[in-house]
Amino acid sequence: MKPGKSLIKHYLQFKDLRAEEYAYLFGRAAVIKQRFKNYEKYTPLADRTLAMIFEKASTRTRVSFEAGMYQLGGSVVHLTTSGSQLGRDEPIEDSARVISRMVDLVMIRTYEQAKLEGFAAHSRVPVINGLTNEYHPCQILADLFTWLEHRGGTTRAGMPDIGSLRGRVVAWVGDGNNMANTWLQAAEIFGFTVHVSTPSGYEVDPAVAGVRDPGCFKVFKDPMDACRGADLVTTDVWTSMGWEAENEARKAAFADWCVDAEMMAVAQPDAVFMHCLPAHRGEEVAAEVIDGPQSVVWDEAENRMHVQKALMEFLLLGRIG
Amino acid sequence: MKPGKSLIKHYLQFKDLRAEEYAYLFGRAAVIKQRFKNYEKYTPLADRTLAMIFEKASTRTRVSFEAGMYQLGGSVVHLTTSGSQLGRDEPIEDSARVISRMVDLVMIRTYEQAKLEGFAAHSRVPVINGLTNEYHPCQILADLFTWLEHRGGTTRAGMPDIGSLRGRVVAWVGDGNNMANTWLQAAEIFGFTVHVSTPSGYEVDPAVAGVRDPGCFKVFKDPMDACRGADLVTTDVWTSMGWEAENEARKAAFADWCVDAEMMAVAQPDAVFMHCLPAHRGEEVAAEVIDGPQSVVWDEAENRMHVQKALMEFLLLGRIG
Amino acid sequence: MKPGKSLIKHYLQFKDLRAEEYAYLFGRAAVIKQRFKNYEKYTPLADRTLAMIFEKASTRTRVSFEAGMYQLGGSVVHLTTSGSQLGRDEPIEDSARVISRMVDLVMIRTYEQAKLEGFAAHSRVPVINGLTNEYHPCQILADLFTWLEHRGGTTRAGMPDIGSLRGRVVAWVGDGNNMANTWLQAAEIFGFTVHVSTPSGYEVDPAVAGVRDPGCFKVFKDPMDACRGADLVTTDVWTSMGWEAENEARKAAFADWCVDAEMMAVAQPDAVFMHCLPAHRGEEVAAEVIDGPQSVVWDEAENRMHVQKALMEFLLLGRIG
Repeated sequence: MKPGKSLIKHYLQFKDLRAEEYAYLFGRAAVIKQRFKNYEKYTPLADRTLAMIFEKASTRTRVSFEAGMYQLGGSVVHLTTSGSQLGRDEPIEDSARVISRMVDLVMIRTYEQAKLEGFAAHSRVPVINGLTNEYHPCQILADLFTWLEHRGGTTRAGMPDIGSLRGRVVAWVGDGNNMANTWLQAAEIFGFTVHVSTPSGYEVDPAVAGVRDPGCFKVFKDPMDACRGADLVTTDVWTSMGWEAENEARKAAFADWCVDAEMMAVAQPDAVFMHCLPAHRGEEVAAEVIDGPQSVVWDEAENRMHVQKALMEFLLLGRIG
Repeated sequence: MKPGKSLIKHYLQFKDLRAEEYAYLFGRAAVIKQRFKNYEKYTPLADRTLAMIFEKASTRTRVSFEAGMYQLGGSVVHLTTSGSQLGRDEPIEDSARVISRMVDLVMIRTYEQAKLEGFAAHSRVPVINGLTNEYHPCQILADLFTWLEHRGGTTRAGMPDIGSLRGRVVAWVGDGNNMANTWLQAAEIFGFTVHVSTPSGYEVDPAVAGVRDPGCFKVFKDPMDACRGADLVTTDVWTSMGWEAENEARKAAFADWCVDAEMMAVAQPDAVFMHCLPAHRGEEVAAEVIDGPQSVVWDEAENRMHVQKALMEFLLLGRIG
Repeated sequence: MKPGKSLIKHYLQFKDLRAEEYAYLFGRAAVIKQRFKNYEKYTPLADRTLAMIFEKASTRTRVSFEAGMYQLGGSVVHLTTSGSQLGRDEPIEDSARVISRMVDLVMIRTYEQAKLEGFAAHSRVPVINGLTNEYHPCQILADLFTWLEHRGGTTRAGMPDIGSLRGRVVAWVGDGNNMANTWLQAAEIFGFTVHVSTPSGYEVDPAVAGVRDPGCFKVFKDPMDACRGADLVTTDVWTSMGWEAENEARKAAFADWCVDAEMMAVAQPDAVFMHCLPAHRGEEVAAEVIDGPQSVVWDEAENRMHVQKALMEFLLLGRIG
């Protein structure tokens, strides 16, 4: 980033927004979702175009952003960098300058966070992180919205009550990856604690996570201990995209980090299970958990679309911030 | 399919709809086509999104569905499974659950019919067969509409008259493939007969075709005999997508199954020639036939778009069924 | 092309339009650009669909046409011929017949101009050259509009004044490629002169360029001489797409054809620098030039979109021509 605060609102990592802004976003997401369910036409982004740039393949991120943009009346240009990487044919700054002259919003799924930030620094329009090696803020946005939906608490204004997350416990079981990092950022903002249990060698790094409050997470050797008393249990595939070469080593290392009924049994009775999908039953999660009554993974997947619609509306037209 | 009839209307094979429903569809297609020709705006699917999933490449299916959806006011998310197959990264049931939460309609072009049905069984929204190894219902829908258009008969209400197909003869010359299977299903519904002539080893299988009425087709060794008296002569490429390895063997086996002027000469004088394209002149069809006056292949190609628009409208908004 | 003038307006090379038509187009582009900047809704192409066919990859052409079409209210089907080339699976005439039945406008980026013309000859709808080995008319359209913008002269009607280009000098430094050819066509129409300086073996060929007036260009051995007194200095990458195999030989041959501050110093003091991008700083252009005050490359890139919107509007709805 260039020195000085940009006037353009980007969404590059979870801590780019403040708690009040999230409260606003979750409220908008609830309204936007209801309109979708009611087949009410709501097209605030008519005439606006989103460019999606994918360096990693994606189904969920692709469909949720693209269908979401269409539902808001906008259009989408879907760019893949098959073969050539962003920043190879031309400096990423040039790509940012050119693309951001033609569209209103850019979503990027790439490897290095630095590449995303390099693009954002030279973009005339808001840039959204659609997944980097370091962070996955849109997924956590969906997860928190889903959690609030399932908790059911609302403010006096009838909006999802972010205050209800304070003091809660999220158990993160598995890889100390971009999802784990982003959960830590969320914990710092909303005042809950992440119980992190990873195999040795796959620990979460608070410096990469970018959190300062040591109270926002607690490390456990045994995943059972991490799950004890948790309000939300969540995990991710053992081998994320880009680490396929380590697949066998990871399978061995992660064998005990499978979220099963035993783990769910020590969590709160009303704890929910989340997974950003795709899921590998029998690896990071037992079928009885992901397909069981505490699992909210399908709502979670659908909510990606609704929270991202709220985010796009906010970045382009939001009255708060 | 799960036991019990789904409340969602899918279009997985030709026999999923009844004759009355086809009569309705052909009437809608005629109206929708006329509006297109007149540049009349007609956008019943505004705010609706179609996901198209392609495991096999396609130009015609792609353009006809995508442009058709746009013309009806809707949007399209175009997914390809380049490299990874549907059901490989995650169980197809999970893909169906997630995608069908975000869009209103799904079109799939894949290999096995079972995969299509697996997706449909877990989908919240209608699923359309855009080609499988077994069936190609959308193509036959277009072919029948084109046939009715060229026959010119209409009902008292001015709609295409499906009754006029009863007792007619369709000659199928060539591979006993998904197109042949689907022609048999159509024959059973509309009361015409398919004269099938294939090289030995490439016969149509009534069990796969899924027909019970033995009167709906008749097998001929010699393609000339199949064409004799036919009202419609049709064929397909010798080597469909997915069978490229057999290309040389097929070229030898199919040498005598080229629709030429001689074959057309023994058909009815007003017989039409159809081909779902792409065509290989000099292989399955002589240039003088496909480029001759009895050929209706370009209308047939365009009509893919119009009948599919009618189909999408029907599955999402249809008042009959 | 078939004998006889087609009634359909295509845009296959720059000389397909006359000076008055360009005057109209530049005026429309100015209006359309202003509406974009003001967020004024202007959707004359609602219900119209553009098919884009890419045989060569592209970011700029892709985004500018696609976002441009959306801004005008239309839709886009984006086709790539990954692996298979246009005209390989089926005769290009058949592709043209089928695709042009389903959409309203076709843009093609391909290799041979003859292929583009073969498609156009059998298309029912207008076809636009999105880059061929021989020509790149849409880029020169953008360059001229940008030049007029920066010159600032307008006609009494407040429109860009194409008369102001008469007698001017454009310096083309580098490869005698499709861009150079198209500049020559533009010079012939607008009455300016192109000073061409290429390495030996990479000369522009007036026969390919398709110009008859020998006064429209002048050849210089030394690029410094070409730039002397120029009103506009422009270049392109040393190795265009499709010539990657010659990369090393070209690097050696083109070493002295780098547009640097020295070259800009001998041009007019108010000369502008243009580049169709992507740019390789230190090869065909020095960073101090492309990133300096005389460079208008970002406006030039954005203007691709606006002039192409004017072009699409003209081909489909234009009242002149």
